[in-house]
Amino acid sequence: MLLNLSARIRKSPFHQATLDSGVKGFTVYNRMYMPTYYVSPEEDYWPLIRSVSLWDVAVERQVEITGPDAAKFVQLLTPRNLSKCKVGQCKYVLITAEDGGIVNDPVLLRLAENHFWLSLADSDVLLYAKGVAVHSGLDVTLCEPDVSPVQVQGPHSADTLAALFGDWINELQYFHCREAELHGIPLLVSRTGWSGEKGFEVYLRDGSRGTELWERIMRAGQPYGIAPGSPSQIRRIEAGIYSYGADMTTENNPFEIGLGRLVDTELEADFIGKAALQRIKEAGVTRKLVGVEIDGEPLPAGLEDCLVFDGNSSVGKLTSSVYSPRLKQNLGFAMVPLRLTEPGTALDLRTPEGTRSATVVPMPFFDLDKQLAKS
Amino acid sequence: MLLNLSARIRKSPFHQATLDSGVKGFTVYNRMYMPTYYVSPEEDYWPLIRSVSLWDVAVERQVEITGPDAAKFVQLLTPRNLSKCKVGQCKYVLITAEDGGIVNDPVLLRLAENHFWLSLADSDVLLYAKGVAVHSGLDVTLCEPDVSPVQVQGPHSADTLAALFGDWINELQYFHCREAELHGIPLLVSRTGWSGEKGFEVYLRDGSRGTELWERIMRAGQPYGIAPGSPSQIRRIEAGIYSYGADMTTENNPFEIGLGRLVDTELEADFIGKAALQRIKEAGVTRKLVGVEIDGEPLPAGLEDCLVFDGNSSVGKLTSSVYSPRLKQNLGFAMVPLRLTEPGTALDLRTPEGTRSATVVPMPFFDLDKQLAKS
Repeated sequence: MLLNLSARIRKSPFHQATLDSGVKGFTVYNRMYMPTYYVSPEEDYWPLIRSVSLWDVAVERQVEITGPDAAKFVQLLTPRNLSKCKVGQCKYVLITAEDGGIVNDPVLLRLAENHFWLSLADSDVLLYAKGVAVHSGLDVTLCEPDVSPVQVQGPHSADTLAALFGDWINELQYFHCREAELHGIPLLVSRTGWSGEKGFEVYLRDGSRGTELWERIMRAGQPYGIAPGSPSQIRRIEAGIYSYGADMTTENNPFEIGLGRLVDTELEADFIGKAALQRIKEAGVTRKLVGVEIDGEPLPAGLEDCLVFDGNSSVGKLTSSVYSPRLKQNLGFAMVPLRLTEPGTALDLRTPEGTRSATVVPMPFFDLDKQLAKS
Repeated sequence: MLLNLSARIRKSPFHQATLDSGVKGFTVYNRMYMPTYYVSPEEDYWPLIRSVSLWDVAVERQVEITGPDAAKFVQLLTPRNLSKCKVGQCKYVLITAEDGGIVNDPVLLRLAENHFWLSLADSDVLLYAKGVAVHSGLDVTLCEPDVSPVQVQGPHSADTLAALFGDWINELQYFHCREAELHGIPLLVSRTGWSGEKGFEVYLRDGSRGTELWERIMRAGQPYGIAPGSPSQIRRIEAGIYSYGADMTTENNPFEIGLGRLVDTELEADFIGKAALQRIKEAGVTRKLVGVEIDGEPLPAGLEDCLVFDGNSSVGKLTSSVYSPRLKQNLGFAMVPLRLTEPGTALDLRTPEGTRSATVVPMPFFDLDKQLAKS
């Protein structure tokens, strides 16, 4: 598909660097161009699981929340209990609407008592938050700061970044972050990522220095075989990581996505969607997102409009799918009625190219920690 | 640029029909694919100004507002005085945030006393409105209904639609709308559009019937030389029509875009941004969007990062530009400091491909009514 450049769609501060690194495909995410592959999605996957991979994810726009009521406002936006979130911590949270529908699934970063970032998936939470703020009576300032992350993911991600920042990289705990500087480039580093591999995000805080940061990380990773890459559909599906907009939308509540652990309906503080989520939790859900293994030849990339049939009626759909070259297996997520969620259940998939059989299986498909424990 | 298909990005109900009609390029708008050209942007332009052109603009998503407080809620969202907006009328409105920044510039359609659609430009007003509704105390229901517009634009647009719907098409007033049906396909027709030509929008209200509607309109337009097309950058810039996300964003207030007529700061009813807009109106703006003619060879399509220089410093930027094959002239819009807004002012543009001279000129560049009056 040919994508026409448009002034409506913004370029990342790393855009030129990714072109120089040989990027071949793009998608649009939060109204910005995002690289999708360099050699091929499969070829880009091997460095990610074997060495280290650098991704331009400037499309993860930040919503910055500051002001005297910032902490209270952030809690208003999410059903996750934030009372124990300390400065320097990150939390995977859901933003929910009044009906309990999921608006986004960002990573929350607490930079100071009243200084937060929401590192967004693909939906405009800044507009949503501005709407919420209007009559909230809370004193907050909301903006999109000049912040653009890259992800450094893979077994040698820590080695790569330790070469630049020093040994504290090895001590940075999972879902913690720290402000940093590199030859005067203002940054923040977090031990987070979207791969299931060991990994970090490096948040550039000066958009004019994207190329410089990109090149410094590429040089530091060279001894470890670093390669340019992008969010890997293969690796994230192996890890059971969901993609907002595909695997969940505003039409889904957290319980049917299996993310009930991110909802504290007993929380004393108020949050948007509390009443609806209490009701849904009590009543139970009627459908759920499950992992599936799909029979047959490797599925084509970007398979769409793949429905789950029960007899002659469509009862659900495949939300994501990919062929894992490591597991030599087609994997996917499917939203199905509760009666079809038990592991072992056989599903009948109808794709534009024909019928496939699938089986419900437990997730994740590939668990790095378990694999490491075995070896 | 190669665009990878993604399950996050939705397809229009007319997607298959546009492929069958030979669409070549796409962009992403409101997280959906939108066709950008069939033969070439210039070749697609001639049928639009000479006969009639059919565009898939399903990306104009609708925010539906219903409920006992719907009218009050809609007025809360926009600074335009809606007290005289009758059922069956459409209004071009701005949605403004609390700081007066422009969130969107949709067409508002009033289907019933308490039934409205906002036909959106490229930003997520449904999320914004859901945020606003949370603490508003107003009883409204907000959703994105199953509604997908096409535009039928050009001198023979009325002939084409009259062949399908009958003579009332010729009586439908500018910025009015009417519910309709075509062989059982539920529709709404409005006398609106994004071209400066005579034109209509036909809102499909059953997403399963996109191909059928597309084909019926193409057949009806055949005697008039209908061609598939898409929102024409050439024609809309000739007409002085702005594109949200390019020519205005949340960083702009209505006055600097020259859209002060859409702001009623004296309105008794409350609307979001009222205090800020009153302040801005009183203080006056420091920059303004102006029309410019740009010297030299036809500009390449999608020219970006073109800055306005004053001596050695960048003082503004070109927000859109295009070569008009009819006027044989490069046209554009530029955001510049107030001192550079007088018609006749010479501007110094710096593009990635070199320097260009430009001159501030009155808008629109091409006024169909004046041309018709002359002829």
